[in-house]
Amino acid sequence: MKKVAVILSGCGVYDGAEIHESVLSLLAIEQAGASWHCFAPDVTQHHVINHRAGEASDETRNVLDEAARIARGNIQPLANLNPDDFDALLLPGGFGVAKNLSDYALNGSDMAVHEQLLEACKAFARADKPAGYICISPILIPAVYGPGAKGTIGNDPDTAAAFNAMGGEHIECPVDDFVFDQSRRLLSTPAYMLATTVSEAASGINKLVTKLVELA
Amino acid sequence: MKKVAVILSGCGVYDGAEIHESVLSLLAIEQAGASWHCFAPDVTQHHVINHRAGEASDETRNVLDEAARIARGNIQPLANLNPDDFDALLLPGGFGVAKNLSDYALNGSDMAVHEQLLEACKAFARADKPAGYICISPILIPAVYGPGAKGTIGNDPDTAAAFNAMGGEHIECPVDDFVFDQSRRLLSTPAYMLATTVSEAASGINKLVTKLVELA
Repeated sequence: MKKVAVILSGCGVYDGAEIHESVLSLLAIEQAGASWHCFAPDVTQHHVINHRAGEASDETRNVLDEAARIARGNIQPLANLNPDDFDALLLPGGFGVAKNLSDYALNGSDMAVHEQLLEACKAFARADKPAGYICISPILIPAVYGPGAKGTIGNDPDTAAAFNAMGGEHIECPVDDFVFDQSRRLLSTPAYMLATTVSEAASGINKLVTKLVELA
Repeated sequence: MKKVAVILSGCGVYDGAEIHESVLSLLAIEQAGASWHCFAPDVTQHHVINHRAGEASDETRNVLDEAARIARGNIQPLANLNPDDFDALLLPGGFGVAKNLSDYALNGSDMAVHEQLLEACKAFARADKPAGYICISPILIPAVYGPGAKGTIGNDPDTAAAFNAMGGEHIECPVDDFVFDQSRRLLSTPAYMLATTVSEAASGINKLVTKLVELA
């Protein structure tokens, strides 16, 4: 059975991994006949957002501990991720990608990427193993793959401009499809960058994951 | 469009709403052509479990604030739920049902049910509106529907005995099916009481929700 490593960035759209995208990803991996294996960095979240009020609270939470909620405890520290053990990589979205896995939400195209995360993603790229980036996580693609890598975050002009400013080639994409950079075996889909319903998010994620497992 | 009220009990299998079941429920409601509307009680969680370590922490969290993570902020306090405005009711599982919506996890068949929650569920029952209970949430059925109500929590002997001790009639059920109490328009499915994968949980939830929306 093909094994897909899934990297989560917390638990909740505004300060962590987007929950719907994460669950839909795990379901799609199973339905494509592969197995999922969750990882997250063992670091403090950038901040905690009260998801009802939409405002920052004064709490402190750990990315790995919170991501464990999505994985029902079945998760490991990102430090344990050995790309040799897996056939493909998948990153769901959520602001956690832009706040915990990188600082894109603060620094835009001048962002830094979490070092361990960057190294893990680059290892999959070097090994020519397929990877899928969902929602805002494609913002990491230029840092991982270098100049000319193709990806999509949907059609948001500012985010697309940042993607291009970092050396990527942004391609507009509807919510129910994905962009495929064939030479890099690299997939991306907009999900909640565009989706207004769970089923819209599922439509693109299902297609991306089917292709990801096929390539693996 | 038919409207389904969904009651959540936090965010995370060990101290709140089971995340996979909740997301699969929202997706299934959309795919059945209905709309979902999330509610949760505005109360402090019984406790907070670190989902990586599996141990209680000393944090304090609010059920509604945490459930808002699953609903992407699109949620209201349970006090605002007017059953007249909805066509059906759905309760995903998770230990939150047994710790926040009731104290079943502490007191077994001597449990008390959160008053507002009990009143809301009874209002759907009185109005003869269909309701679906997933995973451990069927443990609430005897309190809501009174003696003789049929339901399933899968096949766990202790939980089934408690269900019967409270006046219900427990019926064993596999993970990919549901139990239908026809006279009460009442559905239940085991989900993660039995499921070992996301797709197993989805199989029963999808069938239950399809029937729920059909009955509405």
